[in-house]
Amino acid sequence: MTLDRRKLRWNGWGWAHANFELGAREGAVWSYIADALGREKLARSPAVPLPDIHMAGSRLDDDTLTNLQAIAGVEHVKTDRYERAFHARGKSYLDLLALRAGELGEQVPDAVIYPADAEQTQGVVDLAVARGFAVVPFGGGSSVVGGVTALRNPDQAGVLTVDTTRMHKLLTLDEVSHAATLEAGVYGPHLEQQLQARGYTLGHYPQSFEFSTLGGWVAARGAGQQSNRYGKAEKWLLGARLATPKGPWHTESFPASAAGPNLNQLVLGSEGILGIITEATVRVHPVPALRDYRGYLFKSFEAGAAAVRELVQRQVPVAMLRLSDANETHFLQAFSGAQHPPGAATKIGSSVLAWRGYGDQRCLLLIGLEGERETVLESLVVTRSVCARHGGASIGASAGRKWYARRFMMPYLRDPLLDRGVAVETLETATRWSNLLSLHRDIEAAIRDALRTNAADAAARAIVMCHVSHAYEDGASLYFTMVFPQRLGETPAATLAAASEQWLAVKRAATNAMVEGGGTVSHHHGVGTDHVPWMAAEKGPIGLAALEAVKHGLDPAGAMNPGKLLPPS
Amino acid sequence: MTLDRRKLRWNGWGWAHANFELGAREGAVWSYIADALGREKLARSPAVPLPDIHMAGSRLDDDTLTNLQAIAGVEHVKTDRYERAFHARGKSYLDLLALRAGELGEQVPDAVIYPADAEQTQGVVDLAVARGFAVVPFGGGSSVVGGVTALRNPDQAGVLTVDTTRMHKLLTLDEVSHAATLEAGVYGPHLEQQLQARGYTLGHYPQSFEFSTLGGWVAARGAGQQSNRYGKAEKWLLGARLATPKGPWHTESFPASAAGPNLNQLVLGSEGILGIITEATVRVHPVPALRDYRGYLFKSFEAGAAAVRELVQRQVPVAMLRLSDANETHFLQAFSGAQHPPGAATKIGSSVLAWRGYGDQRCLLLIGLEGERETVLESLVVTRSVCARHGGASIGASAGRKWYARRFMMPYLRDPLLDRGVAVETLETATRWSNLLSLHRDIEAAIRDALRTNAADAAARAIVMCHVSHAYEDGASLYFTMVFPQRLGETPAATLAAASEQWLAVKRAATNAMVEGGGTVSHHHGVGTDHVPWMAAEKGPIGLAALEAVKHGLDPAGAMNPGKLLPPS
Repeated sequence: MTLDRRKLRWNGWGWAHANFELGAREGAVWSYIADALGREKLARSPAVPLPDIHMAGSRLDDDTLTNLQAIAGVEHVKTDRYERAFHARGKSYLDLLALRAGELGEQVPDAVIYPADAEQTQGVVDLAVARGFAVVPFGGGSSVVGGVTALRNPDQAGVLTVDTTRMHKLLTLDEVSHAATLEAGVYGPHLEQQLQARGYTLGHYPQSFEFSTLGGWVAARGAGQQSNRYGKAEKWLLGARLATPKGPWHTESFPASAAGPNLNQLVLGSEGILGIITEATVRVHPVPALRDYRGYLFKSFEAGAAAVRELVQRQVPVAMLRLSDANETHFLQAFSGAQHPPGAATKIGSSVLAWRGYGDQRCLLLIGLEGERETVLESLVVTRSVCARHGGASIGASAGRKWYARRFMMPYLRDPLLDRGVAVETLETATRWSNLLSLHRDIEAAIRDALRTNAADAAARAIVMCHVSHAYEDGASLYFTMVFPQRLGETPAATLAAASEQWLAVKRAATNAMVEGGGTVSHHHGVGTDHVPWMAAEKGPIGLAALEAVKHGLDPAGAMNPGKLLPPS
Repeated sequence: MTLDRRKLRWNGWGWAHANFELGAREGAVWSYIADALGREKLARSPAVPLPDIHMAGSRLDDDTLTNLQAIAGVEHVKTDRYERAFHARGKSYLDLLALRAGELGEQVPDAVIYPADAEQTQGVVDLAVARGFAVVPFGGGSSVVGGVTALRNPDQAGVLTVDTTRMHKLLTLDEVSHAATLEAGVYGPHLEQQLQARGYTLGHYPQSFEFSTLGGWVAARGAGQQSNRYGKAEKWLLGARLATPKGPWHTESFPASAAGPNLNQLVLGSEGILGIITEATVRVHPVPALRDYRGYLFKSFEAGAAAVRELVQRQVPVAMLRLSDANETHFLQAFSGAQHPPGAATKIGSSVLAWRGYGDQRCLLLIGLEGERETVLESLVVTRSVCARHGGASIGASAGRKWYARRFMMPYLRDPLLDRGVAVETLETATRWSNLLSLHRDIEAAIRDALRTNAADAAARAIVMCHVSHAYEDGASLYFTMVFPQRLGETPAATLAAASEQWLAVKRAATNAMVEGGGTVSHHHGVGTDHVPWMAAEKGPIGLAALEAVKHGLDPAGAMNPGKLLPPS
C-alpha cells in the first residue's frame, strides 16, 4: 500500500487536496507576514504546471526496461512524466525552487521501480550495477537536504529510482522483547496503525510523519518529536536488512554486543549510499496510557535552557522538550494573533505576564509527557517544580494541545508562502550545553547578516527564529526557521537562479557558523547533497577515509545514490 | 602514573601481594570444591616461575630501538624479560595456561613502549608502519579473549606493544555538559578518583575495574556492573582520539547528529585494529547521593527473568539487575556456607523458604539502585512491588552489601584454583527476551555435554552456572561460569597442550550453541583471538566486508593488532 502518487503534490507538500488552514482571517495573516517582511504587498510567483516543465527524456533502453519489468512486474516500472517528475527531487528549499520553476533538466530518473519485496529490490540493484546505472532509493521523498535527487556520475547509463513504498508490512512483532520487524517502505501512519492494532507504538513522529517512511528515518538518522522517550533512529533501530551491490545484508540484531563495532550504526545515516534498506527491526513500546502536553513561559532563553538541561540531566522521564527562543515565541503569538485576534482577557493576561517580567525576551517551553499514568503524573510534578525553580510560569495545557493538534501541519504553509514570493527554510544543529547559547547567538547573527547582504531589496526584512527540539544529557539541538522575501526573476528560470543563489549564500554563512562554532552540520535532517561540502570538517580526514572505505568496499561501482553524503573522490 | 608492573602478577590476576581471602576455613572451602568436582583430593599444578619460562629473544634491531627511544625516552622502551613476559598475553584462560606453563614461544613483544602522550603514540605507530612491525595496544592487559596477544603476521619484522598507562590524566571536565575528556590509559580507580574529586563519576565498574583502562573499555565495548544506570561503553563514549596508521583521528563528538554514520561506533569494539585510542570523551554523572543494593529470591529463573524484564521495559531507574540461575544461587550459598557454616537461625530460615516454595530452583536477584536520594527511594518501592508480583521474596540488604564489598575479588580466585588443577572460565552472550530461557538451556546443555566428553577422567564433575548481568528493553545478557578439573599432563608443556585442547572443545561447543541459538558471540568480553572463528556468522559476509574495508582503508599494512577481531583475509 503506497500512497497514490497522483493524490500527492509532486512539487509541494503532502496531499494535493490539503492546505494549511488559515481560517476566516486569511487576509490578516498575509498582511501580518507582508508587514513583518517589509513588503507593502506580497508578490505573486506561482509554480509552473506539470505540462510546461523542462525535463530530459528517459534514457532507458528497451532491454533494461524489459528486465526491470521481469523483476518487478510491468505495472511497477514507471517511465511516465508524472512519476519521473514526482521522483526527481525531495522537499528541500532548493528542490522546491527547481520543481516550481519546472527546471528539472537532466536530474530526473529514467525509470521508477516499485519492488514488492526485498528480493525484487536486490534484483533491481544487481541489474543496475551490471548495466552501469545509478540507483536512488526513495521512500516518502521528504528529504529536505537533497537526499533523493536523481543524480548520476558522468559515466553512468542513467538513474533508476527505487520507490520502496510497496514494502509496507509488519512482518513480526515480538511482544516479549518489544521488538517489531517491518518492511522499510512503510509510511508513518500505516506503521503506527499496524503496531497500535496490537497495542504497541514506535513513537517516532517527525514533522514529516505522514509522508516519510521507516527506511528513510533510518537512512537519515531521523528524530521524532518525542525523541526523549522513544529515541532518535539510532536508539530504536535494532537491526536492518539491505539490498547492497554485494548482495543482501542482514545486520546483527542483539540487545547489546561486544563482537566488534555495531554495524547498524553504519546503516544509520548511510542515506542509501551502501544499499537500499528493505526491512528494519525496531524497539516498540506499549501505547502510552496517558499523554500530557503543556506550556511554560520563561523570562529568557537562558533560563528555559537551564530548565531543559536540568530535566534531561536528572533523567526525568519526558517525551518532548521544545523550547522556543524569544523570536519564535514572539512569532508564534503574533501569527496566532493574526488568525485569532486576542480578546480583552488575553490582552490583560499578557500585560500581567509582562509586568511579572515575562517581557520581550520570554520563551515558550512545551513539555510533553507520555507513558504509564503514574509516571506521567509524577513527572508532571517534577517538571513543574524544575520549571518553577528556573522562573518558568505554567501557562497550562491549551498551548500543548494546540501544538499537538497541528504538529504535522507547518510544512503545508511553505507552498502558499512560495506562491507569494516568500521563502521559508530551516537549518538545524546540535552542540554541547556549555556551547549552546553562544552557538545560538552566532548562527542567528550569521543568518541575519547573510539575509541582509542577500536581501531581495533594501526594504526586505526577515523573520529568524529558533527552538531547542531535542535535548540530551550532554547537549541539545538548535532548530532555526527563517522566513524572508525571495529574490525573484522575470521568468521562472530566472527566479530559480536568483533565489537559489540567495539561499546558497545564506546557507553557506549559517553552516560555516555552525561548524566553526562547534555544532554538527545536522542533528536530524541528514547530509544529502546540501551538506556534502562540510563533511570533511564534520568527520575529519580519517573519519572520511573510513566512510569512503566502506562505500568503496560495498559499492565499488558507485551505483548507490551518487552525489549524496560523501564528497566526490 | 602507571601501576608498577613489578607489583602486579605477570602470570595471574592483580596485585602480587593480594589474594582471594578464604579465611580461617580455607581447608573446608577446598574440600567443598574437591567434592563438587568429584575429586578425592585436589591436584598440585603450580605455575612455572619466570626464570624457567621459554620465550624468544627480542628481534628488535638497534636502529629501531634508538628511534623508539628518541620518541618515548630511553627509560620508556623496555626489552627486559619481565616486561616482555608481562605484555605477552592477557588474562584469558588460554593466556593463563600458556603463561603458567612458561611457554610463550614467539608470541612475545620485541619491545614494550610507554608513550607519554598522543603525539608519542602516533610517533610509535608511524615508525612501526614504516619499518613493518606489528603494533599491539595494551592498557591493563585484562582481556579475557586474547585481545592483547603479541601476534604478528608472518611478513612482519616483529611486535611492538604500546602500553598506554602513562597516559592517565583528566584533561577537561565540562560540568555544564556532563562530559569529561581523559587520556585513555587511565586505570579505573585513578579515573574515578580524578572525577570524584570534582563531584562526578563515570560509573563504569567492570569486574576488572582495578586493572583495566578507559581505552580498553572502549576498544572492547565493555560493560560495567551498573550498566543500567551508566551504560555500556557504547552509551557513554562521546568522542575519541586515536593514533592510526593514517594519522591522528579525532572522532566527531556531538550530543546527536545526522551527518552520516556515527564513527565513534566504529571505534567502539575496534580492539586496536584501526589505531590506538589515546583519549576518550565520556558522559559523566554527579556522584550518586544514595546507593541501595539488596537481594530477592525467586522460585525459578523464569520468574526472576520476568521481573527483570518488567523492570527494564517499564524503564524503572535501576543501576544493576543481576539474576543468578538456580545453579549459581546454589553455588553462592554453598561456597559461602563452606566459609561460614550457617547457624541454626539461617538453617531454619532456609527451611522456611523451601517450605514457601523457594526450593531447589530458587534464584537470587540482586538489585542495585544509585542516584538522587528521592529517585532511589521511589525505585525501591517500585522494584519491591514488581518483584513481589513475580513471587520474589526480599532477603534484605545484606546480600547486596556482601556482593558489593567483594565485587572485584572473584578473579583472584582463579590463580589458586589453577594451582590445584581446577579450571575456571566464563562465557557470555546476549539475546532477545523471547529467546532467553531456551538459549540459557541450550548453552548450559552444550557446556555440560562438552565438559563430560572432555572430562579429565570418569569421576570428574563440573560446576556450571549462569547469571543475567545486563538487561535491556529487548533482551539481556547471559554470563556462564564453569569450574572443572583440568586435564593435566606430566610436564607443564603437556598440561598446556591437554588443558588447551580440553577447553577449546568446550569453548567450540558452547559458542556454536550460542550462535546457532540466536545469541551474540560476546556481550562485553570482546572478540580478541578467541571469537574470530565466529565473526563471519556474527556479522554475515557483507558486515564482515564492511569491517574489512575500514580496516584496509585505515591500516593498509595490517600493522595494528594483527590476529584480533577479523578473520585472516
